[in-house]
Amino acid sequence: MQTRVLLDDGSGGRASQRLVSNLFLKYFGNPTLNALNDAARLALGGEWAMSTDSYTVDPIFFPGGDIGRLAVHGTVNDVSMLGAVPRYLSCGFILEEGLPLDDLERIVSSMALACKESGVIVVTGDTKVVPKGTADKIFINTAGLGEIVVTPPPSGDRAAPGDAILVSGTLGDHGLTILSQRQGLSFDAPVKSDSAPLNRMAERLVRELPEVHVLRDPTRGGAATTLNEIAESSKVCCVLDEQSLPIRPEVAGGCSFLGLDPLYLANEGKMFCILPEADAEAALAILREDRYGAEACRIGTVTDEHQGRVVLQTPLGGKRLLGMLEGEQLPRIC
Amino acid sequence: MQTRVLLDDGSGGRASQRLVSNLFLKYFGNPTLNALNDAARLALGGEWAMSTDSYTVDPIFFPGGDIGRLAVHGTVNDVSMLGAVPRYLSCGFILEEGLPLDDLERIVSSMALACKESGVIVVTGDTKVVPKGTADKIFINTAGLGEIVVTPPPSGDRAAPGDAILVSGTLGDHGLTILSQRQGLSFDAPVKSDSAPLNRMAERLVRELPEVHVLRDPTRGGAATTLNEIAESSKVCCVLDEQSLPIRPEVAGGCSFLGLDPLYLANEGKMFCILPEADAEAALAILREDRYGAEACRIGTVTDEHQGRVVLQTPLGGKRLLGMLEGEQLPRIC
Repeated sequence: MQTRVLLDDGSGGRASQRLVSNLFLKYFGNPTLNALNDAARLALGGEWAMSTDSYTVDPIFFPGGDIGRLAVHGTVNDVSMLGAVPRYLSCGFILEEGLPLDDLERIVSSMALACKESGVIVVTGDTKVVPKGTADKIFINTAGLGEIVVTPPPSGDRAAPGDAILVSGTLGDHGLTILSQRQGLSFDAPVKSDSAPLNRMAERLVRELPEVHVLRDPTRGGAATTLNEIAESSKVCCVLDEQSLPIRPEVAGGCSFLGLDPLYLANEGKMFCILPEADAEAALAILREDRYGAEACRIGTVTDEHQGRVVLQTPLGGKRLLGMLEGEQLPRIC
Repeated sequence: MQTRVLLDDGSGGRASQRLVSNLFLKYFGNPTLNALNDAARLALGGEWAMSTDSYTVDPIFFPGGDIGRLAVHGTVNDVSMLGAVPRYLSCGFILEEGLPLDDLERIVSSMALACKESGVIVVTGDTKVVPKGTADKIFINTAGLGEIVVTPPPSGDRAAPGDAILVSGTLGDHGLTILSQRQGLSFDAPVKSDSAPLNRMAERLVRELPEVHVLRDPTRGGAATTLNEIAESSKVCCVLDEQSLPIRPEVAGGCSFLGLDPLYLANEGKMFCILPEADAEAALAILREDRYGAEACRIGTVTDEHQGRVVLQTPLGGKRLLGMLEGEQLPRIC
């Protein structure tokens, strides 16, 4: 019985066909995908959001998730940030020869579960197998399509002075988890990835509060980098209240031990929502009703003081500029 | 001056931003992509085709193309095979730390040229950089969206007894080229990849001859595997006339030297067109007017004799079954 991925499985021939039927269709099967044409046939209409990400996270299994779960959530979330309801995913696997088939099945079944939870289906896909040593275990690309349900959709260049800055939960969890796994560190209070779908709360936000200006998920580069991008695109200043930033004690502790700043660590299930002050309380209520937004809170305000900058206000009344990430804190974080 | 890809370039921070601005926007720039949101905003309507492929070809530069050109043509062609006019591409790069930036720019500029020729734009993208030794130089994923212009679109399950089987040009060129590059072989008459966009001729075919039943490009697994897939899906028999199969003498020679069958070698700029006998001459005329279809010809007929099989008729009146590719002839062919 075959227990590992073989080069044959990526040949495009009979062995590829078996892998597709026995594994991918088993977990992802739907009428569109089952047609097994070169491309999926989709009935679309109106305005759509399209996004793509490749996932290379190391290790491929970690507390709170795995590369498959991440590959669904990451793209679902990117599409959602444009005020779109994610519907369709494409999925491209690059497998290293010798990958245990059990690992592949665990990843694919985890993807199927994540798809189900966020309401998307895989409509087209591709598998390549490369010789041992020319890739590390498994890389996954997903591209996503979502239906935009508000016009104009939220966008990184729409933050306006006076807007409130909200975050849907704690910062730094995913980044610290991957880092501690890679270093073989274990903390007293274990940390786990926050990999989660944001689409349900994003949809409620934009449908119920059409004045949402910006939605963005702080993945690679962390909260500080994402807010810098928004400040630059919108030509505004993001002023953050340091005391209000939600960071788990175990994440703060781990970061302080490792000399890291949680504001530069990747998150995989958190988002910023920037919208007029008047809607801030309603938005927080929506976020907190979602199982992935229970710890949502307000962390700052948009001003026109220092355009293009992010300013951190410390509890003692000091201010410091929070720059964009320079250099790489951690490769293969996602 | 930076001459190689660094881990920082995939950090999501300042260095990533520089790579995006200085390289990707330089070559791929368009209003949709330039917005640099998490997802692209697209106005769609009606029926669309979506497809994805990851490209891992080795070597990354080869006679007749490179991994970038292939990554555009491959997905453009898959979308076209559903009778769709390709419009939008997403693009995900996985770069190995240390990849020369000159190589990356050569690949990206080649992609830009291929996009221009086939009339698509890159609307969203992603770059990951992985540590040296965890991937081989560069892998590219593209996902494509195309507008379906006929209903019902051509599909692999629509071949019908009596249909003519046409091919747009010679078989085996890409596969033999990659193989000979990898083996360091050089033949007297050099071979080169046929990497080419098929979308213009596919569009003319479906618009002018709405009775086109199947369009398929024989990539991995080659002509034999692709025709087997069609025969299985359509529950028909594809009967091929061996003498009519267009194979360049240098490809036939190289294959015979290496003990390979060109019918199982990948093509990257060829397609089958299966349609009613009555439209065959008109289809051939359309194919031959395109610069990538000059050598189009008829190679066989669909029958209901041996359902799900491909039969090769030899010049001496013999018949042999042509199975699907078993095993892997050549990993990293595309």
